[in-house]
Amino acid sequence: MLSATVLTRRDELVAALDAARERGARVGLVPTMGALHGGHLSLVRRAAAENTTVAVTVYVNPLQFGDPGDLERYPRDLDRDVEMASAAGADLVFAPEAEQMWPEPPATSVHVTGLSERWEGEVRPGHFDGVATIVTKLLGLAGRCLAYFGEKDFQQLAVVRRLVTDLSLPVGIVGCPVVRYPDGLALSSRNAHLSAEERAVAPRLYAALLAGRRAVEDDAVTDPGEVDGAMAAVLASEPRFSTDYAAVVRPDDLSPAAVVAGQVRLLAAVRLGDVRLVDNLPATSPHPEAARSRSEDG
Amino acid sequence: MLSATVLTRRDELVAALDAARERGARVGLVPTMGALHGGHLSLVRRAAAENTTVAVTVYVNPLQFGDPGDLERYPRDLDRDVEMASAAGADLVFAPEAEQMWPEPPATSVHVTGLSERWEGEVRPGHFDGVATIVTKLLGLAGRCLAYFGEKDFQQLAVVRRLVTDLSLPVGIVGCPVVRYPDGLALSSRNAHLSAEERAVAPRLYAALLAGRRAVEDDAVTDPGEVDGAMAAVLASEPRFSTDYAAVVRPDDLSPAAVVAGQVRLLAAVRLGDVRLVDNLPATSPHPEAARSRSEDG
Repeated sequence: MLSATVLTRRDELVAALDAARERGARVGLVPTMGALHGGHLSLVRRAAAENTTVAVTVYVNPLQFGDPGDLERYPRDLDRDVEMASAAGADLVFAPEAEQMWPEPPATSVHVTGLSERWEGEVRPGHFDGVATIVTKLLGLAGRCLAYFGEKDFQQLAVVRRLVTDLSLPVGIVGCPVVRYPDGLALSSRNAHLSAEERAVAPRLYAALLAGRRAVEDDAVTDPGEVDGAMAAVLASEPRFSTDYAAVVRPDDLSPAAVVAGQVRLLAAVRLGDVRLVDNLPATSPHPEAARSRSEDG
Repeated sequence: MLSATVLTRRDELVAALDAARERGARVGLVPTMGALHGGHLSLVRRAAAENTTVAVTVYVNPLQFGDPGDLERYPRDLDRDVEMASAAGADLVFAPEAEQMWPEPPATSVHVTGLSERWEGEVRPGHFDGVATIVTKLLGLAGRCLAYFGEKDFQQLAVVRRLVTDLSLPVGIVGCPVVRYPDGLALSSRNAHLSAEERAVAPRLYAALLAGRRAVEDDAVTDPGEVDGAMAAVLASEPRFSTDYAAVVRPDDLSPAAVVAGQVRLLAAVRLGDVRLVDNLPATSPHPEAARSRSEDG
């Protein structure tokens, strides 16, 4: 089997993608923090189907970790990542050393106001600044391309879409559906830290989102508090869960829905032992979207 | 005389510069807020000498104005700007309407910490975030190029250099010397707002910088307070001046010099009537630079 070419220097990545575009290639980019799983691979496969040169970046970005312990224990196995990315269709794997990305701590940060402060941003202050900064840098290095992000981190996807629009980066952002185990748990690198008992109850998070979707779609609930309550009730039924949030939101800026209508997104996050589980689900209300002034997403 | 092509839409600029690069052109970019004067023209001429396609952008960026009155009275005359830019060697003038640049107020901002808070940043809170955000956007639109900025706004130049490094933008930043009237006053769009009396005393700002340079170069002063004092004394001798700052700083991050040694920069800003005058000058101390850990500039 052909293996992807591994690049470790920024100038190698820039030169390789410039050369590919000069040959007429269409470049697909899949930014990851490694520890690849089926969710990432679905992005790589889609990028390979839609482009002629696919680059996967593997970089555990310290800027987006508030907790040094979380950064330290983040799983790393580059050989395995390269093998999996290659099998899924990657041509290049960019795996820079830390000093390649930030030879010194960056003074520059990119902030997406509003979107970055809610939900995950409230639980993890500064997290989305770290994400926005590294993504702006990776997209700057990659140049004109399509970049693939999972809907699993739906708020991250919204932040990235917004900064690309606001900064006019020459990149198309492609959001890809969450990949789940048969029992509904979303694939995530952090699942590796769950004990067997925790793993057994983790799918209750998805069950809560399904309860929210039933409230929106089947029961045609218009009161967002009622939808949030339906999700919260399922989460509260699992004593190992400590709920961070469960909310029905507008799919573009993730602000709380004033009235449940049109396309909405259900967001939920819980702590389970030492692990945070974050998940989301789209839902479509039978009530037409009347009071919304704009919708970019969903 | 050939006139530059005027573009008003972002996609036109992107297409024109992509096409130029595909033809093998080297692209030079001169971002301006219009009201072109000899300082800008020196940038355009240098860009024309070093590149095959030169684009001048004319956009009065509302993000970098704290004071709405200042934004409103900022001089605008596009026909004159196009004529002057063309004569200096511009091939393209990008003059977008506000809704082309920010169809809605951007949620995204770029911040360069440290550098942005000092000197001008202290007097004009948020100013450099507005600069960093629009420059990141303009450089994103322009793509691979050399971008020309005047040393007149030395702190702006330092902010731009830093964000380009931190975000790995595919752009080379070229700083160009301040252009002055024979009496020493630096060319600036804001000089138009000076009364005849104010215009007559304005060159005292340059005189203060020269006094600072004499202290550094001729008197070999090592105490930064003494250099600052030499400049402050000249500024205080002009009763119409109200001094915002006068300081000898490190040329890379514009932090106050601990000891005057090696390459330094002299910064000063005063208010004169309703106008702020900002200027700077490089200086080289006869004392070798021993205590400095790094220097990117100067």
